[in-house]
Amino acid sequence: MSTSIPAKLVKELRDKTGAGMMDCKKALEEAGGDIEAATTSLRTKGLADAAKRAGRAANEGVIDSYIHAGGRVGVLIEVNCETDFVARTEEFQTFVHDVALHIAALKPRFVSTADVPEDYVASERAIYVAQAEDIPEHARERAVEGKLAKHLASICLLEQEYVRDQNEKKPRTIEQLRVEATASLGENVTIRRFSLFELGQ
Amino acid sequence: MSTSIPAKLVKELRDKTGAGMMDCKKALEEAGGDIEAATTSLRTKGLADAAKRAGRAANEGVIDSYIHAGGRVGVLIEVNCETDFVARTEEFQTFVHDVALHIAALKPRFVSTADVPEDYVASERAIYVAQAEDIPEHARERAVEGKLAKHLASICLLEQEYVRDQNEKKPRTIEQLRVEATASLGENVTIRRFSLFELGQ
Repeated sequence: MSTSIPAKLVKELRDKTGAGMMDCKKALEEAGGDIEAATTSLRTKGLADAAKRAGRAANEGVIDSYIHAGGRVGVLIEVNCETDFVARTEEFQTFVHDVALHIAALKPRFVSTADVPEDYVASERAIYVAQAEDIPEHARERAVEGKLAKHLASICLLEQEYVRDQNEKKPRTIEQLRVEATASLGENVTIRRFSLFELGQ
Repeated sequence: MSTSIPAKLVKELRDKTGAGMMDCKKALEEAGGDIEAATTSLRTKGLADAAKRAGRAANEGVIDSYIHAGGRVGVLIEVNCETDFVARTEEFQTFVHDVALHIAALKPRFVSTADVPEDYVASERAIYVAQAEDIPEHARERAVEGKLAKHLASICLLEQEYVRDQNEKKPRTIEQLRVEATASLGENVTIRRFSLFELGQ
């Protein structure tokens, strides 16, 4: 038996997740009208869709900028998608601008952990190894790698928690935001590169 | 005997050069009302002033951006001056924006020739040496260095001819523009860095 879902609830879920109207209706029906459960279900599907899309080429997109603090901080960003059609949508452009704003606020140094230079990782690891001398040997490597991973997450855009989610119970990472955009737009969305300038630094 | 200079002519020279009202009046008096000669005289003085200022610290300034071709080209630029007061002036901000626009149009790769990596210069030189095999030996080095200098000038922002001067008889380089801004604003103006993104490149 199919539950009857009010249009208002469908719209609410759509606004929240950015998913299509029919997907929202179906998810709500399956979840018996529970918006939290429906959101989770859509996100799970989104992840599944995003994984399928990851292999497709993303050569279109948008270059955007964000200037902050009266010209004392500036960000230039390139985000790619697969078609010019999606690049021109408000949803895609809003995503790009939100990420630019996030970069100006949280000042990451790299897009992903894969972009961090080997010698930087090595010198950071050496610091944590030195700090870990008092830790019992069997637990030492784990402590060092944990600290290193935490540090890398703090300087890599995709691993950072989205600045506007800071007061949420479960803040999304930028990578989660990207996966949601990929699911919602139906194209592989990738954050290709950014530049961050701070005045006099 | 001092020539009487119409206020209109003083204003014209001021608009053209950006120099102070009194400096314009004096230059016109000395040039007997010849606006071209007065301009040259101001530029010469400007150059002299700029040289004196080159040693002073430039840690203030502005970060600006320019997005072109519907988000397919983007520029982020930092230009420094000495005080926040000058950084906030329309003249300084217009200079910064003009240079950003120039970068989007002419796509330089470096700020100055000093920023070009040694190995890039070496590999370019090798190409010109190979091309110069048929030139008599006594003229060869000069031909190679000439070609190299021309190539470096084409990829370095400060050496490029200002895009908006392309139809002028004597197009100014960006370095000349910078020196004029330094003279006119009375502070050392330096183009610190820029990023240029082209979609998918």
